[in-house]
Amino acid sequence: MACCGNNFCCQCCCREGETRTPEELTILGETRDEEDEILPRKDYESLDYDRCISEPYVEDLEGMDNKKAKKYEAVRWIMVFTIGVTIGLVGLFVDFFVHLFTKLKFTLVGDSIEKCSDKGCLPLSLLELLAFNMTFVFIASVLVLIEPVAAGSGIPEIKSYLNGVKIPGIVRLRTFLCKAGGVLFSVAGGLFVGKEGPLIHSGAIVGAGLPQFQSITFKRIKLDFPYFRSDRDKRDFVSAGAAAGVAAAFGAPIGGTLFSLEEGSSFWNQALTWKVLFCSMSATFTLNFFRSGINFNKWGSFQLPGLLNFGEFKCLNGDKNCHLWTAVDLAFFVLMGVVGGLLGALFNCMNKNLAKYRIRHIHPKAKFIRVLESLLVVMVTTVVIFVASMLLGECRDLSSPTTHNNTLSGNEDINSTIRQYFCTNKTYNDMATLFFNPQEAAIHQLFHQDGTFSPVTLSVFFLLYFLLACWTYGVSVPSGLFVPSLLCGAAFGRLVANILKVKMGMNVYSGTYALIGAAAFLGGVVRMTISLTVILIESTNEITYGLPIMITLMVAKWTGDFFNKGIYDIHIQLRGVPLLEWETELEMDKLTASDIMEPNLTYVYPHTRVQSLVSILRTTVYHSFPVVTENRQNERDFMKGNILVSNNIRFKKSSVVSRAGEQRRRCQSMKSYPSSELRNVCDEQNAIVEPAEEGEDLLQQMLERRVPLNPDCPMQR
Amino acid sequence: MACCGNNFCCQCCCREGETRTPEELTILGETRDEEDEILPRKDYESLDYDRCISEPYVEDLEGMDNKKAKKYEAVRWIMVFTIGVTIGLVGLFVDFFVHLFTKLKFTLVGDSIEKCSDKGCLPLSLLELLAFNMTFVFIASVLVLIEPVAAGSGIPEIKSYLNGVKIPGIVRLRTFLCKAGGVLFSVAGGLFVGKEGPLIHSGAIVGAGLPQFQSITFKRIKLDFPYFRSDRDKRDFVSAGAAAGVAAAFGAPIGGTLFSLEEGSSFWNQALTWKVLFCSMSATFTLNFFRSGINFNKWGSFQLPGLLNFGEFKCLNGDKNCHLWTAVDLAFFVLMGVVGGLLGALFNCMNKNLAKYRIRHIHPKAKFIRVLESLLVVMVTTVVIFVASMLLGECRDLSSPTTHNNTLSGNEDINSTIRQYFCTNKTYNDMATLFFNPQEAAIHQLFHQDGTFSPVTLSVFFLLYFLLACWTYGVSVPSGLFVPSLLCGAAFGRLVANILKVKMGMNVYSGTYALIGAAAFLGGVVRMTISLTVILIESTNEITYGLPIMITLMVAKWTGDFFNKGIYDIHIQLRGVPLLEWETELEMDKLTASDIMEPNLTYVYPHTRVQSLVSILRTTVYHSFPVVTENRQNERDFMKGNILVSNNIRFKKSSVVSRAGEQRRRCQSMKSYPSSELRNVCDEQNAIVEPAEEGEDLLQQMLERRVPLNPDCPMQR
Repeated sequence: MACCGNNFCCQCCCREGETRTPEELTILGETRDEEDEILPRKDYESLDYDRCISEPYVEDLEGMDNKKAKKYEAVRWIMVFTIGVTIGLVGLFVDFFVHLFTKLKFTLVGDSIEKCSDKGCLPLSLLELLAFNMTFVFIASVLVLIEPVAAGSGIPEIKSYLNGVKIPGIVRLRTFLCKAGGVLFSVAGGLFVGKEGPLIHSGAIVGAGLPQFQSITFKRIKLDFPYFRSDRDKRDFVSAGAAAGVAAAFGAPIGGTLFSLEEGSSFWNQALTWKVLFCSMSATFTLNFFRSGINFNKWGSFQLPGLLNFGEFKCLNGDKNCHLWTAVDLAFFVLMGVVGGLLGALFNCMNKNLAKYRIRHIHPKAKFIRVLESLLVVMVTTVVIFVASMLLGECRDLSSPTTHNNTLSGNEDINSTIRQYFCTNKTYNDMATLFFNPQEAAIHQLFHQDGTFSPVTLSVFFLLYFLLACWTYGVSVPSGLFVPSLLCGAAFGRLVANILKVKMGMNVYSGTYALIGAAAFLGGVVRMTISLTVILIESTNEITYGLPIMITLMVAKWTGDFFNKGIYDIHIQLRGVPLLEWETELEMDKLTASDIMEPNLTYVYPHTRVQSLVSILRTTVYHSFPVVTENRQNERDFMKGNILVSNNIRFKKSSVVSRAGEQRRRCQSMKSYPSSELRNVCDEQNAIVEPAEEGEDLLQQMLERRVPLNPDCPMQR
Repeated sequence: MACCGNNFCCQCCCREGETRTPEELTILGETRDEEDEILPRKDYESLDYDRCISEPYVEDLEGMDNKKAKKYEAVRWIMVFTIGVTIGLVGLFVDFFVHLFTKLKFTLVGDSIEKCSDKGCLPLSLLELLAFNMTFVFIASVLVLIEPVAAGSGIPEIKSYLNGVKIPGIVRLRTFLCKAGGVLFSVAGGLFVGKEGPLIHSGAIVGAGLPQFQSITFKRIKLDFPYFRSDRDKRDFVSAGAAAGVAAAFGAPIGGTLFSLEEGSSFWNQALTWKVLFCSMSATFTLNFFRSGINFNKWGSFQLPGLLNFGEFKCLNGDKNCHLWTAVDLAFFVLMGVVGGLLGALFNCMNKNLAKYRIRHIHPKAKFIRVLESLLVVMVTTVVIFVASMLLGECRDLSSPTTHNNTLSGNEDINSTIRQYFCTNKTYNDMATLFFNPQEAAIHQLFHQDGTFSPVTLSVFFLLYFLLACWTYGVSVPSGLFVPSLLCGAAFGRLVANILKVKMGMNVYSGTYALIGAAAFLGGVVRMTISLTVILIESTNEITYGLPIMITLMVAKWTGDFFNKGIYDIHIQLRGVPLLEWETELEMDKLTASDIMEPNLTYVYPHTRVQSLVSILRTTVYHSFPVVTENRQNERDFMKGNILVSNNIRFKKSSVVSRAGEQRRRCQSMKSYPSSELRNVCDEQNAIVEPAEEGEDLLQQMLERRVPLNPDCPMQR
């Protein structure tokens, strides 16, 4: 899709670089590995972000006065506020039911275990736990069957959306219902998944959907609200919604805003950022308000920031020798960053191979196979945590209440989450304390419980969690990755602290090490930079942790990037989404337009007949075409109508061809598309000469090929 | 400067919109008021941010390999780290000496007052204080005489620089020395100025200068370090430096990063942002490290975040009824935001008029007049605070140590800054406590001292501070505005809290109200949005203040914007800097290129002789010209040399004309510039028809004029 000489092709210019076809991607070397060729690849459309300065638009602009503009702006502010509040309420809903179900489950199973420890009927307790977990996960899995896009964390999808790629169904109301409902059950079902990622996705859907006042899922919902119909406006609201999702999940409004910026924005837009921050604040404080009211009956106070917060890191008042961290610790943090990066890279590598296996062998089969897989995962998880707690947990003395920090916000005392399962009186089971609790409580334990966990327990816990979480991410239930990563990393950090304390006799603050371990592992897995730093700082509510967190994340990212990409990018790549990345490769700077342009351009005239348009659409993969005019006067006439090709067809709805029907037929006839055929021929030829070539080589090759063109492949010129 | 048909004019395209000449500005309605026409206006050049894809550049790019690129990147990271550390050290230096001088002054004067209260020799104490203050301010003022750009806060200048306008001397080493040295003395001299703004400016200079390894001020400093010579690179480092300045000043690395983004960026650049954040972190923690070491002798711990931090807001442990804020308080915060916005608008309006008076009547006179003005201001300030403390201060009982929060971080107890001047034993003077302390300590008093200040004292203090701070900002000493605004606003907030407590019997937390008052007033004055919110949140180190601070700032900004612009924008405007703002006016959307283009284009040919170039430069105000070629082959030949007009002249240094000489002659001959003459004629004509017309009318007029052209003014067509 070459731009743009004397031709008029507004949409073409706008989209250049966003809708790269598979061919272009191949040329640009973005499809790296041979296996990507095997994986199914959908044709995604790109969103229209640029304004088309057409005559109707100019007319509309001239009709705009200050009063109208102010009203428009006011509606926007009200919208972002509503979005924020709604997302806060969604977070509240999910949290409330997760809390309820988990409490119910652990209370019943806990009672059963206590009884059975004496009677010797522990298998019964296990069955009881299994029944709970498998029921919950079954529901979650069925919900995902209804709307397959609701699987996973949703962050890759939102990242793609903000990047400008339209993935079908990603911001539908149905997806929202399945996601928000599903995550509730998958978390309550004891899977090693978090609710944060899905909450971010839900937030984005609320942002996209709420200002529309209509729904494709429920056609009845349709109010007359003629604002914000363009992709541009929608993106703004999705940014705000995703940010609010982060804000609600972590109590991190600034982090949420930066998340949106980091993932989505090419431009820094002051007015938008300000609205996004406001939306995030609204979400955080709505959630905060209701949780304070419901949990503590203190309506009007704001005591519980986000769904996940890390509690207060604080030295005991009397202890003068205690420091949260010192300059010496920084060196260890750097090392932990390196290890975190390595672990993250390993995690990503394993998960990638697993995901590829799933795409090849599970997705093509009947859908209920996916449900069975989810059930298998939850069964194994349940058995593992039960057996591990029973056999490998260490019974430790309950330390006296003065020696550990009761610094959890609110009345939820950290000791209330200690589990005594399988242990005699006055001792507790450290493994069960970590496994038989909501993950947030386990993180709090690792961060704030001064009674140490044994190194063996921490190692076993880390290993089991690492493997199971890796297996779980990708199963077809809504599943976040933040909390499992944090928990896994916290165990690793705590282990380091234990070793330093016991083996080297250092005076370190275990909580800080657990936090840094969590940051290192999470950083190694997701490879986010600015936003993750800020999210973690905000979650700890302690600005002095800024430097260590940032350094750890930096080191973890750099170490991990040495091996592979972040987990979200990997999943985006596996889905074949043509994501436009921040950093282009150095080699790409050397490409010129002629290297990627299509010489045999498909174009239309202003007065092309619908039948011709249909045949063009049937024989190409493109969604927009340059409109070629003979003279400029003609062009101006054409401009008046603002008729782009797709609109042209929409206007002719009454005629024999309908858009949807065409789309179907077009998909079927895609195989006859000559360019892709030629490409396949070329690929085969290339494959014979140099099998399994890497992307960089392809690029290099192409640069070399510039002068002596491959005569067999005229399309790649 | 019209773009760009078939002509080759790279620089022209890059700069369009950034170097608008006064004519264009007039057309665009950006020079609002008639008085702006009177004020002197310099010709600023714009920075070159866009890459010129010329053949040498492409060659350079082709010579670039991955290894080289990585080395380049590594150097960048080391640079930002060095910049951060340096700025931390600068902050430390300023803080250390301000602390030293202030302590010396107050100890000596305090002793004298205590002695003289009995003996009745108070005028002697006043003289002693005067001597101290006037000496310090004299030094500060003389330093500014050496480098006039060092006056003021420097934020308008940095904002302009980041916006792309080159203000001469703004990032010189000399400016840095005068600024950092000057602010030390102006703060120690008891003027109502802060050190935060100048620290931000100093940071920006460090960022601009350090990577150059050479100095224009000291020609001897010149190392062979051939990186980062372009304006583009320089801007990146200036962003980082300014951010680090904020980070050091407020202990707010995230706020600093957002400050840079808000003020400077058009694009969101992930890699840059990440570096900026790292630079900010380095600055904060360098400062933190050394201050913890020097002040508390706790090397290696990090206990004192920024130069200005607000202490910990916390309820007493026993008090169950205490909330920092509740939903009910929010309503009052909104009202306070409105009042803060009004007060800020008033402050800005008064300061603007004052600044205009200064430009018209003080700046044209001999330079020592400015020194005299500074001395007058400090004299009045000193007398006022002395007399006010003596006559209007209220002697209050020292409250028992248990009723107020000793929550200042570190050992600097809040009670240590209570002043008993002019009062009998066991009582303290509330006015003196606010006036005879460093401003940071006074802010702490207002935020955390539970023993209330009397409403009369607070009102008097607010009024005096408001007037004197307004007078001071603009005097030719380095002077920040943040801390005075915060202090002034805190007094206002405390007053509101007092009224609510006493008159309405409400149970409110005074500290929160003081904080919100400070935010409201500061927001009303400076009108910053995102970055200010984040800076204040980080300074309080309390994420739960996010919502109230944000809402207050929003309301204050909206209220203030109703009347005038923020103080920095006002000063930028007074200086005639052609700043490109975020939001264009609605009317501007209706302008087309033909409305602002120059029809009589001055252009050059590739082979224009130097003499012709010189004459063109003498008769125009522009700094770059389209180069017109006859055919494309020629153009390509021309490209090879990458010869822009200005370079052309530089290459011909040996010839009779030198660049500097030309610049001088050009300025002198500017009056004969035909276009500007014509404009003056037009202006006069317009002035006769519609005197003192507003910018919008001008714009409107121009839109109407489109078809029936004014026959007398061919240049405005």
